Amino acid sequence: MKGRVTIPTDESFVEGTKEIAKLWGADAVRDCDGTKLPANAGEIAGKVYETYFVTRGDVAWAKAHPEELQHFFLLSERKTAAGETLKIFPAEGYYAEQVKPDHSKDALRFWQVIDRTTGKEHTEWKADEKEGCIVIEHAQPYHEYTVSFLAHNVWDSTQMYNYITNGWDTDKHSPYDPRYPLTAAHIKEVLEGWLKTHPDVTVVRFTTFLYHFFLVFNEAGKEKIVDWFGYNASVSPRALDEFEKEYGYRLTAEDFVDEGYYNSPHRVPNKHFRDYMDFTMRYVARTVKELVSLVHAYNKEAMMFLGDSWIGTEPYGKYFADIGLDAVVGSVGGGVTVRMLSDMPGVKYVEGRMLPYFFPDTFFEGNEEGAVAELNKNWMTARRAMMRAPLERIGFGGYLSLAAKFPKFVARAGEVCEEFRRIYAGVKGKQPFCAVKVAVLNCWGKLRSWQCFMTAHELWYQQAYSYQGILEALSGLPVEVSFIDFDDVKAGALDKIDVLLNAGDAYTAWSGGEHWQDAEVQERVRAFVARGGGFVGVGEPTAYAKQGRFFALADILGVDEEKGLSLNTDKYNITAEEGHFIFADTPAPDFGEDKKNIYALSGTKVLKIAFSERFTRNVNVGEVKAAVNTYGKGRSFYITGLPYSFENARLLYRALLWTAQKEEYAEKNFSTNVAVDCHYYAASGEYALVNNTFEEQKTTFFDASGSSRGMTLAPMQIVWLKAEDGAVCSG
Amino acid sequence: MKGRVTIPTDESFVEGTKEIAKLWGADAVRDCDGTKLPANAGEIAGKVYETYFVTRGDVAWAKAHPEELQHFFLLSERKTAAGETLKIFPAEGYYAEQVKPDHSKDALRFWQVIDRTTGKEHTEWKADEKEGCIVIEHAQPYHEYTVSFLAHNVWDSTQMYNYITNGWDTDKHSPYDPRYPLTAAHIKEVLEGWLKTHPDVTVVRFTTFLYHFFLVFNEAGKEKIVDWFGYNASVSPRALDEFEKEYGYRLTAEDFVDEGYYNSPHRVPNKHFRDYMDFTMRYVARTVKELVSLVHAYNKEAMMFLGDSWIGTEPYGKYFADIGLDAVVGSVGGGVTVRMLSDMPGVKYVEGRMLPYFFPDTFFEGNEEGAVAELNKNWMTARRAMMRAPLERIGFGGYLSLAAKFPKFVARAGEVCEEFRRIYAGVKGKQPFCAVKVAVLNCWGKLRSWQCFMTAHELWYQQAYSYQGILEALSGLPVEVSFIDFDDVKAGALDKIDVLLNAGDAYTAWSGGEHWQDAEVQERVRAFVARGGGFVGVGEPTAYAKQGRFFALADILGVDEEKGLSLNTDKYNITAEEGHFIFADTPAPDFGEDKKNIYALSGTKVLKIAFSERFTRNVNVGEVKAAVNTYGKGRSFYITGLPYSFENARLLYRALLWTAQKEEYAEKNFSTNVAVDCHYYAASGEYALVNNTFEEQKTTFFDASGSSRGMTLAPMQIVWLKAEDGAVCSG
Repeated sequence: MKGRVTIPTDESFVEGTKEIAKLWGADAVRDCDGTKLPANAGEIAGKVYETYFVTRGDVAWAKAHPEELQHFFLLSERKTAAGETLKIFPAEGYYAEQVKPDHSKDALRFWQVIDRTTGKEHTEWKADEKEGCIVIEHAQPYHEYTVSFLAHNVWDSTQMYNYITNGWDTDKHSPYDPRYPLTAAHIKEVLEGWLKTHPDVTVVRFTTFLYHFFLVFNEAGKEKIVDWFGYNASVSPRALDEFEKEYGYRLTAEDFVDEGYYNSPHRVPNKHFRDYMDFTMRYVARTVKELVSLVHAYNKEAMMFLGDSWIGTEPYGKYFADIGLDAVVGSVGGGVTVRMLSDMPGVKYVEGRMLPYFFPDTFFEGNEEGAVAELNKNWMTARRAMMRAPLERIGFGGYLSLAAKFPKFVARAGEVCEEFRRIYAGVKGKQPFCAVKVAVLNCWGKLRSWQCFMTAHELWYQQAYSYQGILEALSGLPVEVSFIDFDDVKAGALDKIDVLLNAGDAYTAWSGGEHWQDAEVQERVRAFVARGGGFVGVGEPTAYAKQGRFFALADILGVDEEKGLSLNTDKYNITAEEGHFIFADTPAPDFGEDKKNIYALSGTKVLKIAFSERFTRNVNVGEVKAAVNTYGKGRSFYITGLPYSFENARLLYRALLWTAQKEEYAEKNFSTNVAVDCHYYAASGEYALVNNTFEEQKTTFFDASGSSRGMTLAPMQIVWLKAEDGAVCSG
Repeated sequence: MKGRVTIPTDESFVEGTKEIAKLWGADAVRDCDGTKLPANAGEIAGKVYETYFVTRGDVAWAKAHPEELQHFFLLSERKTAAGETLKIFPAEGYYAEQVKPDHSKDALRFWQVIDRTTGKEHTEWKADEKEGCIVIEHAQPYHEYTVSFLAHNVWDSTQMYNYITNGWDTDKHSPYDPRYPLTAAHIKEVLEGWLKTHPDVTVVRFTTFLYHFFLVFNEAGKEKIVDWFGYNASVSPRALDEFEKEYGYRLTAEDFVDEGYYNSPHRVPNKHFRDYMDFTMRYVARTVKELVSLVHAYNKEAMMFLGDSWIGTEPYGKYFADIGLDAVVGSVGGGVTVRMLSDMPGVKYVEGRMLPYFFPDTFFEGNEEGAVAELNKNWMTARRAMMRAPLERIGFGGYLSLAAKFPKFVARAGEVCEEFRRIYAGVKGKQPFCAVKVAVLNCWGKLRSWQCFMTAHELWYQQAYSYQGILEALSGLPVEVSFIDFDDVKAGALDKIDVLLNAGDAYTAWSGGEHWQDAEVQERVRAFVARGGGFVGVGEPTAYAKQGRFFALADILGVDEEKGLSLNTDKYNITAEEGHFIFADTPAPDFGEDKKNIYALSGTKVLKIAFSERFTRNVNVGEVKAAVNTYGKGRSFYITGLPYSFENARLLYRALLWTAQKEEYAEKNFSTNVAVDCHYYAASGEYALVNNTFEEQKTTFFDASGSSRGMTLAPMQIVWLKAEDGAVCSG
């Protein structure tokens, strides 16, 4: 087979590129940071990608139009008034090369001083541009004050990061804002000129669109705030004025700085921020659509890099499909990032940029084994999700000449490309078997499909991995996954699913916070479970302290959290049931960061419990770690945390089967070994058994009829079986 | 020496009692559950105590006046409506022998049905006494409902507990309520009759006054709710009507059942409950005062047992001193319970009932060593606090004849009594040296002095021990301890102290919850620290999520808690400072239950940090476990938890010295060994060095001038030194 693979190339490595393209079956070449496409790139491969920046890179333009540079809303440090007058220097704590407070009259309108001790705005202050501070009068001694200010974002965050990290020495890119008329015209003109002068390019790889995610650095030049979802670098006086015209109310600085949380994705989103997101999404989609139409007019494809400047073009957003993009490319770190791309609606194809990147940090002399290991690890974690929903293409980045020096790497990458094409052929459009339909419920729903619990793209956070494991598990499990929000619940989404999953810390957007106050949401979920639905809760599901409960649906979950207020009520969590269906393959689960103080209500079946070694009372009351409950005709499962592992993925699968009352699928289309996944593609009648490890694995394979047989899989092997091959024998 | 000791006696053990009284220097005898005073008890000792029950024990009276029995407000189980009609059986889940729903018209007025899904009262319901249920009409399907009901408390909780636990077979005591006129007159008449017929008794030991703390059992006869501070067994239609007359508003059932929390001491108390407490305290004090006057009229002393029926007679309450009690006796389990008694104002003397109780569970054949060990353990933990504030008396309970069978026990108890008298002589009125004045700040202040974090009296709770350790440490440290509330802060209490201590879980009465919203409280505390005061925070001090902070005084503490909302802000807790003054004697502290997700603000000095082993990012960011900060001229110390140990007590002492900027006292009136306490009594010029262990200890002793010398103490030894003895040599 051939195709579906993109490789980097370079004007100094044309022949080498051709050779590797042949070995790997690559049909596309691309440029990268630090490389240039050869003159006749089209001769190497049918598809030629070239990187394009929309709102940065034109250094002269940025210099000539300082009033059209992009903005941030930023919060100053908190300062305590000692007396009645207080000076605050807004830029303190920020990287001076990136952040320039905008003292223009137009911007100052939006600056706000807040007394953080009372939460009230304080209006008696003056800005002193010369000194770089604001002076607050009639402050209340020993209150804390902040100033929220508009600043120019004078250095693109990604370029700055690369500059600082890699010691680059190039012109600094100041991003300019197409909300302003000169820039709006300019970006179109420049693109058209570029399209004309780049006939060989078949795919315009938009590495940035309009606005970067929120990323700002501290005075030491280190990362200060990073939010891959943050809208805070899309603001401008002009946008705010237009917003007011359209919505009839005015957004304030506080709507953006949000007490310093900056509307992080973990916050339960409020109406103002939602409105602003919608407003910005529409604007960005409209603007980008014009650029994409230009690209199409020149018979090229438009591809978006799901990375830096994707604010307003969220692929699961309402306006994304209108843009008319041909493709999205994104980096792949595991199953979640595969599904984030492969489930994406509204484009013709998606491509995953695999690891390792061909950079000297991996491709240095003597590290051939290391490079191969990194490739294998990346491929194996991504492959698991591809068995459910494959990408259309994969690709690599960096200096191909570096990779070419490692023949074992070249050979192994060729195998990976070939295996990818085999998976694509076997899975795409073949409707893999799904035992259960599960919906993940949070405040973001579909918009943040496969993006739950994230802060910076794919970065590990101690507070998140015990929840992210759920998604990583789901990305490869034989279940149908959807993401819904609380409005969807009220609109009847529960009618279409078997199991509802709610996970996260209390009062975050993931567990849902105040939405669990909503009586209709409670009614809908209770009715769903009572009629036979399943409910899976992880961490602090449905949490909202009210009316004697911390978990609003403690009655369904069968557990609640002791917050230290009801110690006067005796708890009798003394024993756990052994050998439950859910834990059959995971007797000792990993609870990750775990939750303390969970107790069972009467009637609940505790499955995992932990006892304090210090306990000094007669009856040793434990903390519940996992439990099941029945509620009407339905069932629920609770666990304190679920980081990703083969064992925990299996645990989750069994929990979904049990709560959906489909336990029979533990002996149908099933592999007993947790390290071996089993998929069934009814449309082709094929089974795939996938060894997810680097060791040989033995397993018992159950086919769709429940017949079973022992199997041995080589390291990393995928075994494809046709039912009619007699590959599965009964008995 | 002789005196200050009370022993139990029995009509069958008169000669034995005399012998032991002589050996132990006892000057008082008492009766106990299951024993009877001998006819001429006054011949054995100068003081004779006899137990007296005010509102129970008169079985005939209770039977004859069922309408004057005491009440509870109880909450039914939560029931979900499947349709429009819902039946709830209020008594379900309660012990039928104890709880009888009061269906009288007078009581039904106060029953309430609440829709717990909305929090609103639901008024469409009828009670069906015959079936024992209430029927709710027009319920909202899939909402949870409860009924809050008045029930008669037909079996005294303590008698019931003993009955069930010890298999007693006596008449059941139903407590009667002196709020009702017949009972009000009756309890006085009965007491007067009793006083007349008990001429030998010199001390009336009121084992109950009017109302038992809240203790109710479940349908299996096991403890369901226990709250040593609970007012819920003091209610009655009559009390509520009187309340309304006086306060001009009507209390509802919800004011008492409080969403099922029953106003536990851990809840931030609200105005209604505060009003009811005050109302009840005044009533109880007034009523008990009449009983005490009667006792005095018969030339006897009145003693209260700080145990079962102490509701309304809280010794640190406003009206307690008015009662005119002569004494209080309470059980002693450690330093905290000693100080709870010995710091008590308003009585002539306090007595501690030591352990072990002379019951067969300890005093069985072959367990002489065990009995001695229990005595030593109890004495050693209590003694530590006696060195700061001794009780006036100690005593024992149970069957003296059992103890008499163990000569080693008799001998050791004699030594303990002697040592107690020596401590009393050396400490009482001698003003022990206090390096620091520390105030513990919570919602209860003085009223709950030495009672913070408690639920059932002295019982261990996993959620509490990491805070209770603070009080146990303070009970024996050379510091002056006061307990203040938020009104005290606003009234200037901080002017009188060196260090303010705030400890507890978020939103509990101990950390303070909503009181940290109060701008004036914040101003006062900030001003106090800025001017040089000290602040010690443990757990979740000052917690109240608002305006970007979880800890309201994060600026003082230098730390805050990540609740999952601000993950977008980078944390740089990477290293901890070694060798700080505070941890000099406690390099590896015990954090107990600990707190997760604490991070340091910029400028804070992290002293203890924990790193996740799973951390996968470049910079390993830890969780802060302890930190110090400077704020203006003041200092703060934070730690995640502080269970009691010698090492942690020392840690706390050093934290108080450091935050008070009195580090010099680590070399004055000080013992380097954490197991050896050093006390200095300026009034007598004596030092006491106390070995708190059962092993020999070596230490370096620093006197008041800072001169030091090595010392060796025998197991359990106290060394008393006079400065002028030359006992302390310089150099």
